[in-house]
Amino acid sequence: LHSRFIGPTVLEVSTHRDDEVPEALYAALTDSVRRLVDLTIRSQADSHRLASAKAFVDSAADELSSIVGRESFGVQHDADGRPRAWGNAVIGLRNALAPPLLVHREDDGSVWADVTLGAAYEGPAGHVHGGICALLLDHVLGATAHKPGKPAVTGTLTLRYELGTRLGPVRAEARVERTEGAKTYAVGHLATPDGVTVRAEGVFIHPRTA
Amino acid sequence: LHSRFIGPTVLEVSTHRDDEVPEALYAALTDSVRRLVDLTIRSQADSHRLASAKAFVDSAADELSSIVGRESFGVQHDADGRPRAWGNAVIGLRNALAPPLLVHREDDGSVWADVTLGAAYEGPAGHVHGGICALLLDHVLGATAHKPGKPAVTGTLTLRYELGTRLGPVRAEARVERTEGAKTYAVGHLATPDGVTVRAEGVFIHPRTA
Repeated sequence: LHSRFIGPTVLEVSTHRDDEVPEALYAALTDSVRRLVDLTIRSQADSHRLASAKAFVDSAADELSSIVGRESFGVQHDADGRPRAWGNAVIGLRNALAPPLLVHREDDGSVWADVTLGAAYEGPAGHVHGGICALLLDHVLGATAHKPGKPAVTGTLTLRYELGTRLGPVRAEARVERTEGAKTYAVGHLATPDGVTVRAEGVFIHPRTA
Repeated sequence: LHSRFIGPTVLEVSTHRDDEVPEALYAALTDSVRRLVDLTIRSQADSHRLASAKAFVDSAADELSSIVGRESFGVQHDADGRPRAWGNAVIGLRNALAPPLLVHREDDGSVWADVTLGAAYEGPAGHVHGGICALLLDHVLGATAHKPGKPAVTGTLTLRYELGTRLGPVRAEARVERTEGAKTYAVGHLATPDGVTVRAEGVFIHPRTA
């Protein structure tokens, strides 16, 4: 039960409690918020309906604000001690900004993710914002260096934009080129039906104190 | 471009049609959605309240979906022909993923923006996701190359992460180093109360066909 991950009380929550919120409910709520974010951009409804929508959104926020946790989600743990990055800007189950990316790991250490990017990720008309491309590539390159309980942070990241990345289906891929002590050198790219659009290389570091 | 600064007086003047939605209503709705995104991550409300919140969110989405525009917002124009990037992932007035960044331009061509980043932008616990740092830097560096009606796209971008960027107030700055034909070479950084956290350099290009 993430909501009581404060000091020794984390031990108490290893048993299921009646008031524990099912993960599927968080996922469903967040998916609804993702749809709302998209419609807030694209709606052509009139002022009356927009005002009505705003009132519904505020009512939803009021329900959620009855009890609010820390300033940010951080990394909390489930009853079995597994980390939950539910607030993460790229993969967070409860973060409506996150598509979210579902990162798959292959036996050879490479990672990939398929994602569909809609209106909320737009920069140039009809295309993914160059910075969103960087966000996704930072995450998947970093994921090659990630080990359970031993996260990696970005040292350097270099991006080469070869084509515009059209909104729609995008694949992100990355693999380790080599490691040197605490440093992982990773390379990767984004691809759409047009082909490879952005290439990246980066150095990711396991901090001394995690 | 940042017509949000213009204020309600001009909004009344620019309302040419009875059915035109005031900009301030779009801004208010999107601000409500931003608050909702934050609370969706941080709420510790029980299942009953979460389910109620989801129902409100779905009702809001239903109102908005009565009439829906194109697949993405693109760049539309107001009655005076000024471009509106309201869907943009970084600066979009109607994009709840965008903080949004308000980019200020100095006479010397440099740009800066102050922004407060909350739970939705988290990567490492308590810190801004490295890819969100890249997103902001891509945008402000690109903004140095931007000219009205002549947008620039990213050619290359290199980021050096010197410190973790704590959630909270962040300043983004960028300036032009030099230009060569259609290419603008820009440099910039992010800074928090801890000092400079991420440095960036990039090449931005005005496409032949805009």
